[in-house]
Amino acid sequence: MREPILLTPGPLTTSPATKLAMLSDWGSWDSAFNALTASVCRDLVAIAHGEASHVCVPLQGSGTFAVEAALGTLVPRSGKLLVLANGAYGLRMAKIAERLGLTHQTLAWPDGTPVDAAAVAAALAADPSISHVGVIHCETATGLLNPLEAIAQVVASAGRALLVDAMSSFGALELDLRTTPLQAVIAASGKCLEGVPGMGFVLVEQAALTASAGQSRSLALDLADQYQYLQQTGQWRFTPPTHVVAALRAAIDQYLAEGGRLARLARYTRNAELLISLLGAAGLQLFLPREWQAPIILTFHAPAHPDYDFSRLYQAVRARGFVLYPGKLTTVETFRVGCIGAIDEVEIRQAAEAIRGALAELGWLTPQPTAAEHHHATTAIFA
Amino acid sequence: MREPILLTPGPLTTSPATKLAMLSDWGSWDSAFNALTASVCRDLVAIAHGEASHVCVPLQGSGTFAVEAALGTLVPRSGKLLVLANGAYGLRMAKIAERLGLTHQTLAWPDGTPVDAAAVAAALAADPSISHVGVIHCETATGLLNPLEAIAQVVASAGRALLVDAMSSFGALELDLRTTPLQAVIAASGKCLEGVPGMGFVLVEQAALTASAGQSRSLALDLADQYQYLQQTGQWRFTPPTHVVAALRAAIDQYLAEGGRLARLARYTRNAELLISLLGAAGLQLFLPREWQAPIILTFHAPAHPDYDFSRLYQAVRARGFVLYPGKLTTVETFRVGCIGAIDEVEIRQAAEAIRGALAELGWLTPQPTAAEHHHATTAIFA
Repeated sequence: MREPILLTPGPLTTSPATKLAMLSDWGSWDSAFNALTASVCRDLVAIAHGEASHVCVPLQGSGTFAVEAALGTLVPRSGKLLVLANGAYGLRMAKIAERLGLTHQTLAWPDGTPVDAAAVAAALAADPSISHVGVIHCETATGLLNPLEAIAQVVASAGRALLVDAMSSFGALELDLRTTPLQAVIAASGKCLEGVPGMGFVLVEQAALTASAGQSRSLALDLADQYQYLQQTGQWRFTPPTHVVAALRAAIDQYLAEGGRLARLARYTRNAELLISLLGAAGLQLFLPREWQAPIILTFHAPAHPDYDFSRLYQAVRARGFVLYPGKLTTVETFRVGCIGAIDEVEIRQAAEAIRGALAELGWLTPQPTAAEHHHATTAIFA
Repeated sequence: MREPILLTPGPLTTSPATKLAMLSDWGSWDSAFNALTASVCRDLVAIAHGEASHVCVPLQGSGTFAVEAALGTLVPRSGKLLVLANGAYGLRMAKIAERLGLTHQTLAWPDGTPVDAAAVAAALAADPSISHVGVIHCETATGLLNPLEAIAQVVASAGRALLVDAMSSFGALELDLRTTPLQAVIAASGKCLEGVPGMGFVLVEQAALTASAGQSRSLALDLADQYQYLQQTGQWRFTPPTHVVAALRAAIDQYLAEGGRLARLARYTRNAELLISLLGAAGLQLFLPREWQAPIILTFHAPAHPDYDFSRLYQAVRARGFVLYPGKLTTVETFRVGCIGAIDEVEIRQAAEAIRGALAELGWLTPQPTAAEHHHATTAIFA
């Protein structure tokens, strides 16, 4: 059987070329691997237009490791972090700050409500001790796109530094370091760049990184130390995930060949629009208002059926060859469908058909008029 | 051209079957991946015979991430860590303790001198505040095998807990949790198990792990939290390196099919003996006395030539298809040759020939009598 298509926000379905890049072993001390690392870092900086201001620090582990590394390296003990949270990933950032013993405060909005830049401005005006602000670009818990540009302008006007978790947006949604003042952007290999998971990275202002030397209370997660060693030797400090880096190199090559960020965004937007349309026709409604919905991962209300159980829907869709993602909201029953990965209209149509078929089998399909029935009904009205 | 053979202690040369296992994408929430994780953890515990006492906690990142996670999770703020150091990896453990702000002390021996269990006993008797002891099983900086059994008995007799960095020994050298009292054993995917790099793991006494809940000041590197979540959901807390885990599953399958630990050790021992013999014939001398040399990675004295430069030797051997490893000693000029990975006598003979050829090309080959010349010389003496 064909392996299932992952409709999940990372790990996701990668292309054959990306996976084939893992069929070589690389020496972590070898100049060929050093060149691979350098080229990946150079391209990651270029994707966000940060050549004049930012450097890329790659890090072993998942994206969350890179978030913890950024907070632990960049926020000094004398500083204070304001976390803007409107979902599970914002709350996770606050939890990391708590664990690290950083002075911090959380400004929270309900799931599905965008961060309000004016409220951020007020919070910064009220507390001069806040040195850094942390926010999630696309909150994967709901798929909501936060108004990053407005937040960045407010934070910069107040003279504070902004750290952005761009995990599920980097490489697809707009992010221009020439015009948007961001101290650090955190992302990972296995999301919109369509690499495999196992490596995070932080694009960070060179001056801020230099100034942060010695601040981290972790050795493994010290971005300043990692960068300094990379600069001196071309090598990662500790064993790099060589095959993951090679896969990311191949994935970025395909990204550039596809046409870069705008082409990637266009494909994901087509995927999202088609999913919303086809699943809407199957009676499934988006959780978010359309204007806040990023074309990365879609949250749908669960079918309004008393027997509804996500694990049964998951299994029925899985049996049809597609992997869904559970909801991450505590108050509303939802499930999520990713639009990202090496998938296009063909897989999206198959996926929508699989979800419709699963709902029908389970008896949870809300009857919708078909086009013919709709025509008939319309005709009837005017008859 | 054939890709170079890695004579390095991880990343190393993996088998085609191990690399081919990375040609699938896995959903991190999917039951198939949960089963993969569970089976890998089960086998890792079984390899060290820890079924009755220890659990396996996998962790994203390199082996050093797992070392930091073990120290940060298991050593309480009220405790004190005694680090036994006779090389770069022992010193790294002390550096991690320093960064984490753990109360600690280092008992150090020169490179190439094994840890002395009697000195450890004396240190423990002298300082009742020491709660934990950390040691490197096979010190990769030199290739030295520390007397783990003797150290473990001394530490257990004193009622303290022993944490072992078994990064470069796990799966090959003897390690039996039924008879050797160890609170935690730390290793990684890309060493003697011959997986690809990107994942560490810690085998830890269940009771100690449970008691350590809430101690870690890191979220990403909290082993207690990672384990609890795995138990509850079957899933990793944060995105797992799915392809690395799949490669490790395939590597362990091959490990078991080869005959397990004793067969792996026998192959590495043959590799080491052959390298020592062939490179000895080319005039290269082992840094360590034979009785302390583990058959994992060999440290050789550099050729005694005024022009010697490791990078030139490296390039000349690299041009012949083999990747060497630099020395890691500060006072003596050395280089290292790994015996581990999916390599056997065939590659070792090729490698020795490549090193001999490189030395000859560079003019650094110490003339050694060939067998025929030796016979002739002997004959001459008695003529």
